[in-house]
Amino acid sequence: MVSMDKLVSLCKRRGYVFPSSDIYGGLNGCWDYGPLGVELKRNIKSAWWDDMIGHHDQTDTPAGAPSAYDMVGLDCSILMNPAVWEASGHVGGFNDPMVDCRETKTRYRADQLVVFRMESDAGPRDDDLLFAAPGEAGITPEEELIAPHRKRIKSITKRGGEYRLVPVEEGLTDEAIRERVFAPGAREPGTLTAPRAFNLMFKTHVGALENKSSVAYLRPETAQGIFVNFKSVCDTARVRVPFGIGQIGKAFRNEINPRNFTFRSREFEQMEIEFFCRAEEADRWYSYWRDRRFQWYVDLGLSTARLRLREHDRDELAHYAAACADVEYEFPFGLSELEGIANRTDFDLRQHAESSGKDLRYFDDQEPDKDKRRYLPFVIEPSAGADRAALAFLCDAYTEDEVGGESRTVLKLHPRLAPIKAAVFPLVKKDGMPERALKLYRALRHEFATAYDEKGAIGRRYRRQDEAGTPFCITVDGDTLNDDTVTVRDRDSCEQVRIPATEAAARIRDRLRS
Amino acid sequence: MVSMDKLVSLCKRRGYVFPSSDIYGGLNGCWDYGPLGVELKRNIKSAWWDDMIGHHDQTDTPAGAPSAYDMVGLDCSILMNPAVWEASGHVGGFNDPMVDCRETKTRYRADQLVVFRMESDAGPRDDDLLFAAPGEAGITPEEELIAPHRKRIKSITKRGGEYRLVPVEEGLTDEAIRERVFAPGAREPGTLTAPRAFNLMFKTHVGALENKSSVAYLRPETAQGIFVNFKSVCDTARVRVPFGIGQIGKAFRNEINPRNFTFRSREFEQMEIEFFCRAEEADRWYSYWRDRRFQWYVDLGLSTARLRLREHDRDELAHYAAACADVEYEFPFGLSELEGIANRTDFDLRQHAESSGKDLRYFDDQEPDKDKRRYLPFVIEPSAGADRAALAFLCDAYTEDEVGGESRTVLKLHPRLAPIKAAVFPLVKKDGMPERALKLYRALRHEFATAYDEKGAIGRRYRRQDEAGTPFCITVDGDTLNDDTVTVRDRDSCEQVRIPATEAAARIRDRLRS
Repeated sequence: MVSMDKLVSLCKRRGYVFPSSDIYGGLNGCWDYGPLGVELKRNIKSAWWDDMIGHHDQTDTPAGAPSAYDMVGLDCSILMNPAVWEASGHVGGFNDPMVDCRETKTRYRADQLVVFRMESDAGPRDDDLLFAAPGEAGITPEEELIAPHRKRIKSITKRGGEYRLVPVEEGLTDEAIRERVFAPGAREPGTLTAPRAFNLMFKTHVGALENKSSVAYLRPETAQGIFVNFKSVCDTARVRVPFGIGQIGKAFRNEINPRNFTFRSREFEQMEIEFFCRAEEADRWYSYWRDRRFQWYVDLGLSTARLRLREHDRDELAHYAAACADVEYEFPFGLSELEGIANRTDFDLRQHAESSGKDLRYFDDQEPDKDKRRYLPFVIEPSAGADRAALAFLCDAYTEDEVGGESRTVLKLHPRLAPIKAAVFPLVKKDGMPERALKLYRALRHEFATAYDEKGAIGRRYRRQDEAGTPFCITVDGDTLNDDTVTVRDRDSCEQVRIPATEAAARIRDRLRS
Repeated sequence: MVSMDKLVSLCKRRGYVFPSSDIYGGLNGCWDYGPLGVELKRNIKSAWWDDMIGHHDQTDTPAGAPSAYDMVGLDCSILMNPAVWEASGHVGGFNDPMVDCRETKTRYRADQLVVFRMESDAGPRDDDLLFAAPGEAGITPEEELIAPHRKRIKSITKRGGEYRLVPVEEGLTDEAIRERVFAPGAREPGTLTAPRAFNLMFKTHVGALENKSSVAYLRPETAQGIFVNFKSVCDTARVRVPFGIGQIGKAFRNEINPRNFTFRSREFEQMEIEFFCRAEEADRWYSYWRDRRFQWYVDLGLSTARLRLREHDRDELAHYAAACADVEYEFPFGLSELEGIANRTDFDLRQHAESSGKDLRYFDDQEPDKDKRRYLPFVIEPSAGADRAALAFLCDAYTEDEVGGESRTVLKLHPRLAPIKAAVFPLVKKDGMPERALKLYRALRHEFATAYDEKGAIGRRYRRQDEAGTPFCITVDGDTLNDDTVTVRDRDSCEQVRIPATEAAARIRDRLRS
């Protein structure tokens, strides 16, 4: 698998992703998509919208599930009435527990620290935080921290993300243990504050005055926009439960330690569906969406060996969720979440109905049982990250191989996702070849994102398109001028076939459909 | 032309646009696009991207202009390093002059007030603000303000947006004039403060601490993201001047008086191009883009009678601009700007080069004259509003006419922009018609946004699609089951033709291309 260093370097070199405001030293946790990146991301978002909202059809539903349902889209504002975030619990509870190091003034997410706790042979002593160091941020690997102290430690066991240490000498005071177990220089417990809550929403003020009543937040998720519009959509779009509302849009979280390139950033784009169904059908729809969303990544080419569908344990679930599964991908920095699919019950609609005082119940005029006509539907939420998907597709596509004894870097992106679908080259820059090639290029360009390149040796031109993930390179050569045939070279196999120029468009079209 | 009341009502009733966070009383200046609105806006943005970035081809350039250039896309973050906005002048200068009413605590944009100044017959007395009232916000029409005082005023003239009043009695003190000219109850000059600067950027804090060094702004325009990435794009995308970079994305301005529905909102979406060219070619490119952008609206169906291309006078130009033109549309609330096309010279790149200390000059390795190889290009900027475009297309499409003696409301949207391209109806809900209609619906749905409707009388189903702007309604009737023909009804002419069901897709496809 590609290393992050190589991938980041390719992204910058080829114009996939740049650091935001780079000439001013950047802004931590924010990224810009360059010419190739913006097309890749547009293709991912279009594929999601087309597959989930546009072309969704009841014939796709599993046997046994209700046979007719529909999907509609929505595009809500990023700034919303702050009452939305009070009702959703984000103002009160959307917090990360933060720990400050008094010495270095660094702030860590408490749940990302590697925590060492003391144990006696008798059992754990939970309240006794002994030492902590940033984990996921990767500053100090766990092993390095422990290694120098091996001989002072009787046993080490890992439990629930924490290391439990039994020191060689029993009966010492904690202070003494600390002194003996950890060498000077390591950050010691006294330097870390107790965890404190830190709200992750970006705050601003709307209107002329900066006071409490003008506070607004940048939405930390797109989901709530769908919930607060549920009634409006029901009243205007002629949808019937079960149905879903999808939205693609930016969301913002003031992450303390943005990291892993675009994976955890402060500004990111979500692709979310809230699917509304009867409580008694929620389990079935949950399974349906979980499997359908997993399959979407497979269909767009992610290697199944690197994908995992992880069902959450009961004790992992949020208090409002009846079930949750993560689609995880094996990134170079480890197995991490691409998308979460959750059965959120009627929690969100109930919260908003109570907070707003509006009746958000759905009315089913075709339900024969009068008592069952009005109800708050359950919600199945497949929530995907567009940036994470882009990163996974890039990691998965990145390949180094050898062609004719020469090494090359190639992005084996699914043709639907490739920023450029075809490149047209004149073999040499004379004898009418550029003119014929330009003519073909212009014809293709009206239907597909197409590049034209007449610069340098043909091998170098291939390499450039390989790095851009272009599935087809079409070369106009001397024979083209005689019989109007061209060679089409396949990005992955490097095989070349000779076909009539008039058939080039159909060949690309076929591959985009498969 | 449609009134705003009618249009807003249709938008809400049919799910084009809802007030943001409506169940919580909304958020002034923020709007959500409902199921039909999101598709309309997606279609507008796609049309812009495809026409400007994707399919742009040098064969389109005017004779005389350089014959080869290219367009690439970009997608920058909304949160950027604040140094960007210092360099661009937005921190220091992006201000609206605000006026407060001391009595009502209302804040007005000084440039939107209807201003009355006293004049003697000898000439104006400019420093003497006599009376002001919100103008464009539409609270008090100018005529109503003046009417009650007619007999106390000798003459009224309008000059540069201000009313100059000559009172009947000369030689009175200002105080006396005020007392005599304006009846009690009208807001009087003493209640208004002098204009004060108010920065329009939304401010937030990035990172754990809220202090001066953590301040960041929501971008007030997408343009600067392109300028600060100019060098990265040149280095990675193999573009050559002249070329353009396009971007679609959200921008935010803390407008004091958002108004006119989605026209002036606090959160809006821009579609911007920065086109880089040699200084000596800037005039030609300016004319090219001005005309090309105007024509884009015409091609997508805006009535030329309601469109105007207004070239700015010299004294209207921003200090950095060499030329500027507005594409204006005659909205129900008056002629207003849809898009601005400006020759921004090398102002922006120069500012960022100086502020960042980075050399942002373009290097032309094919220029024979050594001294001319490195230079800061000039920039032509066509800057369009996606929400304004959507509003203009809706206003222009809104039609009330009569069909067979019955009045109907129909949105005559260009087929490329219509949220739904075709609707399929079974004439009646029996005899196998729904099954045949569903089959056709499913076949079409893979290529076009298609609706299916079997509910109610056929006339009512037509009306519903008319209000959604659907160009084609296809009806499956008894004959369909015998000879597989369907009727296709045209939204605008209401004419129906009978064609083989197998030809329906081709018919829609043709209209989308035209």
